[in-house]
Amino acid sequence: MNARWVLARRPVGLVADSDFRLEEVPVPSLSDGQFLVQVIYLSLAPVMAQYVLDGGVIEKPVAIGETMRGRGVGVVVSSRHAGFVVGDVVHGPFGWQKFAISDGKGLVFKMRDWAGAISNGLGALGLTGFTAYFGLFDVARVRAGDTLLVSGAVGGVGSVVGQIARIAGADPVGIAGSDAKCGIATESLGYRAAINYNSEDVRSRIAALAPGGIDVYFDNVGGDILEAAIDNMANDGRIAICGSISQYLATGSRKGPANYFNIVYRNVKMQGFHIYSYANRFVEAEARIARWIRDGRLAPREDRIYGLESMPAALQRLFASANTGKQVVQIADDTVSVGVR
Amino acid sequence: MNARWVLARRPVGLVADSDFRLEEVPVPSLSDGQFLVQVIYLSLAPVMAQYVLDGGVIEKPVAIGETMRGRGVGVVVSSRHAGFVVGDVVHGPFGWQKFAISDGKGLVFKMRDWAGAISNGLGALGLTGFTAYFGLFDVARVRAGDTLLVSGAVGGVGSVVGQIARIAGADPVGIAGSDAKCGIATESLGYRAAINYNSEDVRSRIAALAPGGIDVYFDNVGGDILEAAIDNMANDGRIAICGSISQYLATGSRKGPANYFNIVYRNVKMQGFHIYSYANRFVEAEARIARWIRDGRLAPREDRIYGLESMPAALQRLFASANTGKQVVQIADDTVSVGVR
Repeated sequence: MNARWVLARRPVGLVADSDFRLEEVPVPSLSDGQFLVQVIYLSLAPVMAQYVLDGGVIEKPVAIGETMRGRGVGVVVSSRHAGFVVGDVVHGPFGWQKFAISDGKGLVFKMRDWAGAISNGLGALGLTGFTAYFGLFDVARVRAGDTLLVSGAVGGVGSVVGQIARIAGADPVGIAGSDAKCGIATESLGYRAAINYNSEDVRSRIAALAPGGIDVYFDNVGGDILEAAIDNMANDGRIAICGSISQYLATGSRKGPANYFNIVYRNVKMQGFHIYSYANRFVEAEARIARWIRDGRLAPREDRIYGLESMPAALQRLFASANTGKQVVQIADDTVSVGVR
Repeated sequence: MNARWVLARRPVGLVADSDFRLEEVPVPSLSDGQFLVQVIYLSLAPVMAQYVLDGGVIEKPVAIGETMRGRGVGVVVSSRHAGFVVGDVVHGPFGWQKFAISDGKGLVFKMRDWAGAISNGLGALGLTGFTAYFGLFDVARVRAGDTLLVSGAVGGVGSVVGQIARIAGADPVGIAGSDAKCGIATESLGYRAAINYNSEDVRSRIAALAPGGIDVYFDNVGGDILEAAIDNMANDGRIAICGSISQYLATGSRKGPANYFNIVYRNVKMQGFHIYSYANRFVEAEARIARWIRDGRLAPREDRIYGLESMPAALQRLFASANTGKQVVQIADDTVSVGVR
């Protein structure tokens, strides 16, 4: 039998447990060109709030009664697809369920290298890490010597951004929501310093920690912190707009940076990017990040909880800023990661 | 005798005549390394409102009693500077006055080619035209085939942007504030179509006129029109933030684009730029634009009024959207332009 979470009703404001319903259904049988994945880990990301609220701009909202959308990593357990054989480790948009049928299309990615645990396929070696990689190198064009500011520094993406920035010779400063998180940022995630936005004045702390200005701001949060960053950019600075967790659940009008025009005076570039655009280069990012993990230069940070039944709670953890590192849920025994590498 | 406008008091909201005071003072004598310019034309630009309000981010506000800041074009009438001789045509930050002393520093530019009238040194062949040129080619990286949207399409910068975009093989659509201006945009300024923001729904008109999306948005206004443009960008679109006339006089908080996050879904780049950064390439822009003027491919559009006493009124024209093309004031006989080319 398969088990899956479906959307029971459209949430109002914060996502609640009762917005979802856990169902048992039969595992469907395969057609030609399909394979069956046993999902072992499921991913949580802030953008999922948009899937259930309004879909954002390019995604359709999840329909009531539909399996909740989300990426997972797992193992192919049967296949009628020429490109996937039993035992392949794959991550893809398998949804909040134990077993998923796939035809290999739609950003399904066969892991070549998981450098540790296959759960990294949702974190540093999955779209989370690829977002950090392409956001830094292709969008922000980070260079050795750049002073980098990262909001959500201890979140899924931010926990990789700091470490890759350090590998690239840049000087990352993080922003996070507690002293404990700031400690993790500086001790484990490559950050030179970290700002607690709940207890410190972010604008003046940025100025103090980066007196020459910020060359690159990697934004995961939007809102007031984006404005504080804009006011501290160096000439020719780059802002990579990755996420906007402060605005996803905003009711009524969302907030744009009121001081956006200041980008004019310093020739600042602000660029949005969507990781799907880089799909043809995921293999490049995976290979490099895997090498950094094996070389001990990048330590993926994961916040793992257990059981399919924990999915709604895991999503709520993101908006409560409870997670440190990539939030994943393990929903089956992992017989793949152990002792493989 | 020299005559000059000084700032009499700091304006509140809109700039009024009584914020300035016209004075007669002696023409100062030259020291070594200086030259004297007789100013013939003075420039008006929306950003001047910031000079008298708060200075914006990088300029100091004009002090009470100080000569009002602004660029002019004129002729060197005496010189103790090795690099400038009597008869040289120069544009520079000479202020609102008849005679200015200069040491040649601070963005003083000796015109090599004025292709028509020297007043072009404030328009197409001055910082206005250079802003169009570098904004299009270096910031927005316009390519042949691009669909381009330009706000303030009939203003100083916009009236050049449309024509250069057309020369570059792009397809410009303008936005302006009246049917008359929209007519000028399409008949004289290279625009394929124009939207009257006072009588049409800008968002839906952009969508109708650019069904494949906007590749480049050249923003001179900010505010609601910037938001409408953001919602209509094509994948990998570029937004060049040049001006924000809707916000310069805003009292209280300025408005950022509430939908800025939509740049994420389409990989849009939004870049501010400041023309001073391109000073080492002004000669390139002047030579190319002058050639286009002489070849009949670019017709500078100028809105000229007369007399130094008209300066405050000329500034007010910009915020009343009264000007079509570059607003200049002629304050002396032009004995240079006539019959030279």
